[in-house]
Amino acid sequence: MDSERLVELLQQVRQKQMSVTQAVLRLRHLPFEDLGFAKIDHHLALRQGFPEVIMGQGKDAKDIAAIVRAMQRRKSSVLVTRLDAAKMAQLKRLRTRLKFHQSARAATWAEKAIKITGKGVVLVVCAGTSDIPVAEEAALTAAMMGNRVERLFDVGVAGIHRLLENRLRLDAASVLIVVAGMEGALPSVVAGLIDKPVIAVPTSVGYGASFHGIAALLGMLNSCAAGVTVVNIDNGFGAGFAASLINRL
Amino acid sequence: MDSERLVELLQQVRQKQMSVTQAVLRLRHLPFEDLGFAKIDHHLALRQGFPEVIMGQGKDAKDIAAIVRAMQRRKSSVLVTRLDAAKMAQLKRLRTRLKFHQSARAATWAEKAIKITGKGVVLVVCAGTSDIPVAEEAALTAAMMGNRVERLFDVGVAGIHRLLENRLRLDAASVLIVVAGMEGALPSVVAGLIDKPVIAVPTSVGYGASFHGIAALLGMLNSCAAGVTVVNIDNGFGAGFAASLINRL
Amino acid sequence: MDSERLVELLQQVRQKQMSVTQAVLRLRHLPFEDLGFAKIDHHLALRQGFPEVIMGQGKDAKDIAAIVRAMQRRKSSVLVTRLDAAKMAQLKRLRTRLKFHQSARAATWAEKAIKITGKGVVLVVCAGTSDIPVAEEAALTAAMMGNRVERLFDVGVAGIHRLLENRLRLDAASVLIVVAGMEGALPSVVAGLIDKPVIAVPTSVGYGASFHGIAALLGMLNSCAAGVTVVNIDNGFGAGFAASLINRL
Amino acid sequence: MDSERLVELLQQVRQKQMSVTQAVLRLRHLPFEDLGFAKIDHHLALRQGFPEVIMGQGKDAKDIAAIVRAMQRRKSSVLVTRLDAAKMAQLKRLRTRLKFHQSARAATWAEKAIKITGKGVVLVVCAGTSDIPVAEEAALTAAMMGNRVERLFDVGVAGIHRLLENRLRLDAASVLIVVAGMEGALPSVVAGLIDKPVIAVPTSVGYGASFHGIAALLGMLNSCAAGVTVVNIDNGFGAGFAASLINRL
Amino acid sequence: MDSERLVELLQQVRQKQMSVTQAVLRLRHLPFEDLGFAKIDHHLALRQGFPEVIMGQGKDAKDIAAIVRAMQRRKSSVLVTRLDAAKMAQLKRLRTRLKFHQSARAATWAEKAIKITGKGVVLVVCAGTSDIPVAEEAALTAAMMGNRVERLFDVGVAGIHRLLENRLRLDAASVLIVVAGMEGALPSVVAGLIDKPVIAVPTSVGYGASFHGIAALLGMLNSCAAGVTVVNIDNGFGAGFAASLINRL
Amino acid sequence: MDSERLVELLQQVRQKQMSVTQAVLRLRHLPFEDLGFAKIDHHLALRQGFPEVIMGQGKDAKDIAAIVRAMQRRKSSVLVTRLDAAKMAQLKRLRTRLKFHQSARAATWAEKAIKITGKGVVLVVCAGTSDIPVAEEAALTAAMMGNRVERLFDVGVAGIHRLLENRLRLDAASVLIVVAGMEGALPSVVAGLIDKPVIAVPTSVGYGASFHGIAALLGMLNSCAAGVTVVNIDNGFGAGFAASLINRL
Amino acid sequence: MDSERLVELLQQVRQKQMSVTQAVLRLRHLPFEDLGFAKIDHHLALRQGFPEVIMGQGKDAKDIAAIVRAMQRRKSSVLVTRLDAAKMAQLKRLRTRLKFHQSARAATWAEKAIKITGKGVVLVVCAGTSDIPVAEEAALTAAMMGNRVERLFDVGVAGIHRLLENRLRLDAASVLIVVAGMEGALPSVVAGLIDKPVIAVPTSVGYGASFHGIAALLGMLNSCAAGVTVVNIDNGFGAGFAASLINRL
Amino acid sequence: MDSERLVELLQQVRQKQMSVTQAVLRLRHLPFEDLGFAKIDHHLALRQGFPEVIMGQGKDAKDIAAIVRAMQRRKSSVLVTRLDAAKMAQLKRLRTRLKFHQSARAATWAEKAIKITGKGVVLVVCAGTSDIPVAEEAALTAAMMGNRVERLFDVGVAGIHRLLENRLRLDAASVLIVVAGMEGALPSVVAGLIDKPVIAVPTSVGYGASFHGIAALLGMLNSCAAGVTVVNIDNGFGAGFAASLINRL
Repeated sequence: MDSERLVELLQQVRQKQMSVTQAVLRLRHLPFEDLGFAKIDHHLALRQGFPEVIMGQGKDAKDIAAIVRAMQRRKSSVLVTRLDAAKMAQLKRLRTRLKFHQSARAATWAEKAIKITGKGVVLVVCAGTSDIPVAEEAALTAAMMGNRVERLFDVGVAGIHRLLENRLRLDAASVLIVVAGMEGALPSVVAGLIDKPVIAVPTSVGYGASFHGIAALLGMLNSCAAGVTVVNIDNGFGAGFAASLINRL
Repeated sequence: MDSERLVELLQQVRQKQMSVTQAVLRLRHLPFEDLGFAKIDHHLALRQGFPEVIMGQGKDAKDIAAIVRAMQRRKSSVLVTRLDAAKMAQLKRLRTRLKFHQSARAATWAEKAIKITGKGVVLVVCAGTSDIPVAEEAALTAAMMGNRVERLFDVGVAGIHRLLENRLRLDAASVLIVVAGMEGALPSVVAGLIDKPVIAVPTSVGYGASFHGIAALLGMLNSCAAGVTVVNIDNGFGAGFAASLINRL
Repeated sequence: MDSERLVELLQQVRQKQMSVTQAVLRLRHLPFEDLGFAKIDHHLALRQGFPEVIMGQGKDAKDIAAIVRAMQRRKSSVLVTRLDAAKMAQLKRLRTRLKFHQSARAATWAEKAIKITGKGVVLVVCAGTSDIPVAEEAALTAAMMGNRVERLFDVGVAGIHRLLENRLRLDAASVLIVVAGMEGALPSVVAGLIDKPVIAVPTSVGYGASFHGIAALLGMLNSCAAGVTVVNIDNGFGAGFAASLINRL
Repeated sequence: MDSERLVELLQQVRQKQMSVTQAVLRLRHLPFEDLGFAKIDHHLALRQGFPEVIMGQGKDAKDIAAIVRAMQRRKSSVLVTRLDAAKMAQLKRLRTRLKFHQSARAATWAEKAIKITGKGVVLVVCAGTSDIPVAEEAALTAAMMGNRVERLFDVGVAGIHRLLENRLRLDAASVLIVVAGMEGALPSVVAGLIDKPVIAVPTSVGYGASFHGIAALLGMLNSCAAGVTVVNIDNGFGAGFAASLINRL
Repeated sequence: MDSERLVELLQQVRQKQMSVTQAVLRLRHLPFEDLGFAKIDHHLALRQGFPEVIMGQGKDAKDIAAIVRAMQRRKSSVLVTRLDAAKMAQLKRLRTRLKFHQSARAATWAEKAIKITGKGVVLVVCAGTSDIPVAEEAALTAAMMGNRVERLFDVGVAGIHRLLENRLRLDAASVLIVVAGMEGALPSVVAGLIDKPVIAVPTSVGYGASFHGIAALLGMLNSCAAGVTVVNIDNGFGAGFAASLINRL
Repeated sequence: MDSERLVELLQQVRQKQMSVTQAVLRLRHLPFEDLGFAKIDHHLALRQGFPEVIMGQGKDAKDIAAIVRAMQRRKSSVLVTRLDAAKMAQLKRLRTRLKFHQSARAATWAEKAIKITGKGVVLVVCAGTSDIPVAEEAALTAAMMGNRVERLFDVGVAGIHRLLENRLRLDAASVLIVVAGMEGALPSVVAGLIDKPVIAVPTSVGYGASFHGIAALLGMLNSCAAGVTVVNIDNGFGAGFAASLINRL
Repeated sequence: MDSERLVELLQQVRQKQMSVTQAVLRLRHLPFEDLGFAKIDHHLALRQGFPEVIMGQGKDAKDIAAIVRAMQRRKSSVLVTRLDAAKMAQLKRLRTRLKFHQSARAATWAEKAIKITGKGVVLVVCAGTSDIPVAEEAALTAAMMGNRVERLFDVGVAGIHRLLENRLRLDAASVLIVVAGMEGALPSVVAGLIDKPVIAVPTSVGYGASFHGIAALLGMLNSCAAGVTVVNIDNGFGAGFAASLINRL
Repeated sequence: MDSERLVELLQQVRQKQMSVTQAVLRLRHLPFEDLGFAKIDHHLALRQGFPEVIMGQGKDAKDIAAIVRAMQRRKSSVLVTRLDAAKMAQLKRLRTRLKFHQSARAATWAEKAIKITGKGVVLVVCAGTSDIPVAEEAALTAAMMGNRVERLFDVGVAGIHRLLENRLRLDAASVLIVVAGMEGALPSVVAGLIDKPVIAVPTSVGYGASFHGIAALLGMLNSCAAGVTVVNIDNGFGAGFAASLINRL
C-alpha cells in the first residue's frame, strides 16, 4: 500500500536521477495521500472489528442496498441505523441477508460472529418505554462494535426504587449509557450512584415544553453529578460508539 | 363601609324621590366600588392572617420605609422580599423594628406572633447550598402566612441516598416546595416518593447551558412524575404563597 | 409479601447459624426490594381510589388494549389519555367496555362508580372553545380521581364581564384549573378574584408568535397574581392530577 | 427653496443652450435632492408642532448638549428620551433651560406652550408601579406632540376591579396606550372593554422567565382581543408617537 | 332589556317591602349581568356596521355552517377567516350564499352592501407575491368593516424604486397596513416616507433563518422609523381590524 | 427607452410652451420611472448575461409555466430553483424545453450557450452527501450566471485528509462556496487554508440539536477564520449569486 | 463504622429478644443510613486518590477557608475551582498552604504527591489562547485525580497544519479533552484523526452570535465525527473528571 | 527555509545510507512542518501587504504591548482591534508609536505607508450614528489591508431619500460593507440598488426585541435582495477582511 509515486521519487534520488533540491520541491507538490497520510483515516483503523455504518435516514432504499452490497463484498460487517420497517421492506433481496432489529430501527450484517473486544460491560439504561428505540440503537451499536451489552429499561426517576433495586448491576458495568426524554434527570441520579463514566442521551420523547428534547438535553448538560458527558438528542449510535471507544482503552 | 352613594340612591327610591327607571339608569353609572364590589379585592380577604407583601427589588429604601410604616399603622404584618443587606442598612430607624432574614434576603414585621392557620406541615426541600436563598424565601413566606414550616436542604439527586434517608419527613408533609437549579431534577424524584402536591421552584443557580434557570424550569415542566406544578425562576415567594393557599383548604 | 430472603437471614441469626457481623454484611448486599422498600412505590399507595393511567399518544392500539385488559383483571379503574377517535376505533372488542370521551380525547373504565374522596369542588375554567380538549382532559382526570368537577368554559379575558358574572362559582371552588392558549392571561385574572390555589395550563392554541404554547406558558409563569402554579403545555392530565392531590388534603 | 440647479438646467433648455437629449441625460445624474424630493422628508412635515427627538441613551452629555442647542436655535421644541438624572446633571448650563421629567427619564424644551392638535384624549394605562417610567415616556411624548394626555396607572389584571371602576375613563379616550410587564395581559383586557385602538407596550419589568420583557411581548402579540397593536419592549416613545399620528387623523 | 330582577328589587324598596340595608346586601349578590354591565360587551357596540367574525382554522365545516346560519338569522354580516377552498367546498348549501375570497382564504356574507364608515383610505401594501394571502385577509377585513381599501402589492425593498413611484398613493392614505415576510424591512421604509400610522404585519414567508416569521417580526418591532406598530405573524385580520378602529376616529 | 413624457416636457420648455416654474412643479409630480430612474432597476442591468430566476417553492406548476413562457419570449435565460421532480412533471409541454437538474432541484432554459463572464473558477465544496442538493443549487446558479464552476464534494472535517489532498484545487479557485450542515465547521477549515473569499452556506442537514440548520449557521457566523461570510440556511442560490458578483469584479 | 442500631437489632434477634417478624418490621423503618447504604456515597469511593472539590464561584472566602481546613484535617487532597486571584488573596493564612494556579483559576492542596492511577495520558487540546483557562481547569482536575496530563494549546481549525503537525501526540493519548469557543469545530477535526474518546468542552469565548458559548455547544453536539461527547459550557472540571473516570477503566 | 531534516533524509537516500523503504517510513513520521506544509499558512501568504491583527478584547495591556513589539521587530504592520481608550492609555511608551483610532476603537502601526493593492473602492455604509464604531472598524481594516475606502454614514432606511441621493457613490464602489443595527434592513435596500457584492454587518445597536443584534442578524440573513452575505454581529473586522479578499481578485 506504499505510495508508488513516493517510492519512485526516492529511487530516483537514490539513483541520482533527481537532485535533493528537486526532490524537496516535488515532495511539496505530491498529493497528500501519496505521502502515506492515508493512515490518518481512522475509519480504516477502527474497522478492525468495527462495523461500517450507514445512516439510513435521508437515503432511499436503492442507495442503501448498493452501499451494503459493496460493504459485504469487502467482508465488512455492516450497521444500518435509522431504518424503518417500510424502508427495510423495500430492500428486497437484501432483506434476507440483513437482520432487522425493529426496536432499534436498524439492520445489521456480519459474516461471522462479532468478536468481543471491549473489556467490561456496557450497560444501557433508559427512563421510559418511549425511550427504548434510542436505547436499543445504542445497545446494538455497542454490540456490533464488540462489547458485552446489558439493558436496564424503564427505570425513570419518578419511581426511584426500581433504579435502586438494580444498583448492583449499575456497579458492575464499565461504561453506562443513560437514555431519557422529558426532564432528562436519570443520568444525574445514575452518575451519583456509581463511579464509572456515564454517557447521557437525551431523547425527543415528551411534548409541549420538552421542545423535542431540548429540556432533556439542557438537563443533562447541567447535571449536578460529575462524570456525565452528553451526545446529541436521539443519538443512540453516537453514545454506543463513544462507549465502545472507552471500553477498549 | 357600605357605599354612601348606594344607600342614598336606595333611600331616594324608598322615599319615591326617584323612579325605579331612574334608579336603574343611575346604578349603571355608579363607580364600580360604590356597588360594593370591593369584596372582590381578595387581598383584603387574604389579609385575615396574611401579611402585606412588598417586593423590595427595584424600590429604593425610602419608598420601602414609607410603605412599611403605612402598613404598621394598619397593624398589618409585613413581609419585604428581595431585600439585600445594603438596602436593609439604609432603612435607618426602621431597621430596629424590622427583623432581617439574611439567608432569605427578606425582612418581616408582625405586631403579635403569627397564628398557625395552615393544617399540615409545609416542607421546603432544596438541592444545593446555592439554592438556599430561594428556599428560605419560600419558607419565610409560608411561615408569615401561618404555616408550620420545615426545611430539608442540600439533598440533590446526585447523592440520592441523602434524600431517601429522609423519606419519613417527606411522607409527613402536607405540601412540599422543592427548590433546585442546574438540571432541576429534584421535584421529579420527590414527587415519585410521596402522594402530596409538590410545588417546584427552579433557581437561576448554574452556569453555561443552565441559561439562568431555563434548564431547571424546563426540567420541572417536563417532570415525568405527576403532581408537580411549577412557578417562575427564583420565585420562592410565589411558591410559599401557593403552598399556603393549599394548606388552608 | 415479606421478603423470604430477609426472613431466612434473620432466622439464621436467631438460630445462631450466622453471626451478627455476617448478617450486617449480607444485609448490605440484599437487593433493595427484599428490604421491603416496595412500600415507597406510591403508585400503589395512590391507587386507593385513583385510576391507573395510560398515555395513549405514541402507543399503538394493540399495546393499549393489552395494558387495559391487565388493569381490568386487577380491578383497577382505568384512564387512557391522548386517545383519538381513530385509535379508539382500533381497540375493537375493548371498545364496548371502555367509555370514550371525545372532547377530552380519552377513554375510561371503572368497575363501579368512582367514589368522591375530594373535599371540595374542582372548577375547570377555560378561555376559548379551542382550549376545551385540554380542559376536558383535566376535568375527566379529576373526576376519575374522585372529585366533584365543574366547568366554566369560554370566558376569555377579552370579554371580561362573562368571567365576572360567574364570580360566585369561582368563589365556591376549592381548587381551580385555568386553561388558556394565546396570551395565557386568564389565570392571572382568575387568581386576582379568589383566594384559592390556581393551577394554570397553557395550551398550544394560537399561531405565529404563540410558538405552540410558549407565549401562554411564559405569561402564566410571570403571572402578577400570587397563588398561580403552572404545568406543561397542554398537560390537562397533570393539572387534574395535581388538583386531586390538593383536594384530598 | 427650489433647486437652483434644476431651474438653471431648465432655463438652459428654454434658451436652447442645451438640447432636450442632453437635459434628459443630465437630469438623471442630478442629485436626488435637487429634484425636489426633499418633500419626502416627513420629519420636516411632522415638525409642524412635533418636537425634535434625541435618544439620550448611548450619547454622552456633551453631544446631547450640542444637539439640543442647535435645535433651540432652530426654534424647534425638543424631547430628549432615555436621559437619567446623572446625565441630566452633566448637561450643565443647559440644565436650567431644559425641563427634566424624572419619572419619564426625559427632558424637554419648548419656546412656547405646546399647541393641542390631537383630536381626542390619549389615555396611558399601566399595570404596575414598576411600569411607570415607560408609561411616562409614552405620556410625555404624546403631550409634546400636541395631545391631551391622561394617565391611569397601577391597574394590573390581578386586581381587575380597579380597572373596571375606571371603565368610563377608558370609554372616553380616543387612543389608548397600555403598558405592562410580567405576563403583559392588561392590553387584552382593556381592548375587550372598549372599541378604540390600543397600542400595547411590553416592559422589561419582571424576572426569571419574563426574559427581560419577552413574556410580555409575546402575550401582547397573541392577544385574544382584536384591535391591539404592539411596539418594542420598553418603547414608550414609539407608542406615544404612533398614538399621536392616530389622534391627528 | 333592563334587568327584571333589578327592577323588581328596586320596586320592593320603593314599596318598602325591602329595607335599604337588605337591598345593599342583595345588590352585591346579583349576577353581574343584571346590573346592566352587558353594555360593556363592546362586541355588540362594534357590531354597528362591523361583521361578526369566525376564525375558520381549527373548526370543522359543520360547526362553521352552524355559526354562520345563526349569524345570518341575526342579520349580521359575516366574515369567516382562515378558510381554505377544501373546507369551503364542504360548506354545502351554504356555499351558494357565502362569497369565497380565494386569495384572502376567507368567505363573507352581507345582507346589504357594506356602508363606508371609515373616514379615509386604508392602504394595504405588501412586499412579495407570497405575502398576498395575508395582505388580502387584511384588506378584506377592513373592507367588511366599512373602509375604502386600496392595494399596493409586490413593492419589496430590494426594488425600492417601485415603492417610490407610488409615493403619492402612500401619501394619500389615512392608515397603512404593511405586510412583509423574510427580513420584514418594508414597514420601516414606508413609515419613513409618510406621516400616517403604519400597522406592520410580519408573515411566515421565507425559509431557514426566517424561522416562520420571527425574523420579520423582530425586524418590525425594531423599526428605526417611529409610528410603526406590529401585530402577530400572519395576522392580517388583526391588522385590518385595528386599522378600522383607527380610521373611524 | 427615454421617457416620452420627460422629453415632451423638456420640449415644451424649449418651445416656451411651459415656463421653468411650471416645469419644476410638474417634474416633481412625474412618476418616478419617467425621470429615468428605471436604470436603478439593477435586475435589468444584471440581466446582461444573467438568467431570470423563479423561486419554485410555494408556486404551483401553472404559475411557474406562465412565468417561464413569458421569459422565453423575452429571450431571457431562465433558472427555476426549489423545483422538485413532482412539480417538474406537472409542467407538461414545457418539460421538453426545460432542462431538469435533479440533484440541484432546479430547471434551466437558455436559448444559447451561457457565456463565461466570470474571471476565475467558482469552487463549490460540501461536507457530506446530504449537503449535495444545496451545493448543486449553488453550482448551477453560478454556472447559469456565466462562471466556470468546479465541485469538491464529501470532504467533511471528520476526515480532514480528504480535504487536504485537494488543497491545490482550493488554491486554484477565485471564490469558494462551502456548504455544510451539522456543526458547519468546514468553512473555517477551508478559509484557514486559502486566501480567497469564502461564502459559507449552512444546510438544514442534521437532527436533534442541529435545529434545522441553526447549529451550522451559528458555527459559520462565529468562524475563527477571517474572510468567511454567510448566507441563509439552505440558500444555495444566494451563495451562487453572490459568488458571481464577486467573480465579475 | 457499622450502624450501631443495626447491630443492636440483630443481636436482639440472635438473643431471641425480638422475633423475626418484628425485626422485619423494624428494619423497614430504620433510617436509610443505618442499613449501610452509605456505600452508595460514591464520593467516598472516589476519594481513593481523588481530591475533594469545592466550587469557589458563589462562595465567599471565609466559607471556602472553613471547608478547606476541614478537608485538610481529613487529610483529603483539595481542589478549589473557579477561584479568582482576588478571592485567593482573601484566603489569608490559608494562602501559604494552598497552591494557586492562576491560569486555571483554581487552588490545590495535597499532603503528599498525587499518585498516578490513570492508565494512559489525558491530552488537553484547546483552540485559542482565550480558551486556556477552561483547558487548564480540565488539565488540573485530571492531574489532581491521578492522571498524566499533557497540553496541546492554540491549535484552532483556522490553521489546521498546526494540529496536523502534532498528530503523533494526538495518537499517543488515551483520552482527549478538546476545548474550543466560537464555532467549536476543533473536537470534530480531532475525533476524525484518532480512535480514542474525545470529551468536548465548549467555552463562552466569542461575541455576537456565539451567544456565550451556545454556538460552540451546538457545534459539538452536532459533530459529524463519532466518538465525541460534550459537557456544559466552560465546564473544564467536568471534562477532567469524566476523563479521569475513563482513564481508570 | 527548506527543512534541514528533509534535505538530510534525502541526502542519506542519495548516498545510499538509507534505503527507500526506510525513507518512506521516516517521511511518514517527520513533523508536518518539515514536509514544507508551512506554505499552507496563509497568514504568511496574506501578510504580503496585510497587517498582523490582534484582537484587543480579552487581552490585558501588557500582553498586547508584547505582541505589538514583536510584530514591529518583524516589520509587520499592525492592527489592534477592540481597544478602548482606557486600555490604550495603559500601553505606555508604546502609545507614542501606535496611532489610536477612537471611533474605530482600534490602534494601528505601519513602518511605511500602506500600499493600495485593492482594485476598486470599498464603500462602508452605515444606518445610524450608533453603528459608526463597527463601521469604522470595517473601514480601518480595509484601509490597513490596502484598499481605497470611502464612507457613507447615517443613511438609515427610515429616511430613504438620503440613501438615494448617494446612489452614484453606491454605483461607483466595487465592494460594499453595509452596517446596521435595529431591524437591519439597510443591506437589502442597498443590494437592490446596485450589482456589486454586499457584505452585511449586523450591530448590537438597539434595545428590547433587538436582542443585542439578533433582529438585525436575522433580517440580513433573510434579505430579499440577492448578493448579500453576512458576518457575525459587530464584526466590522471580519467584513473589512472579506471585502479586502474580494477587492484583490
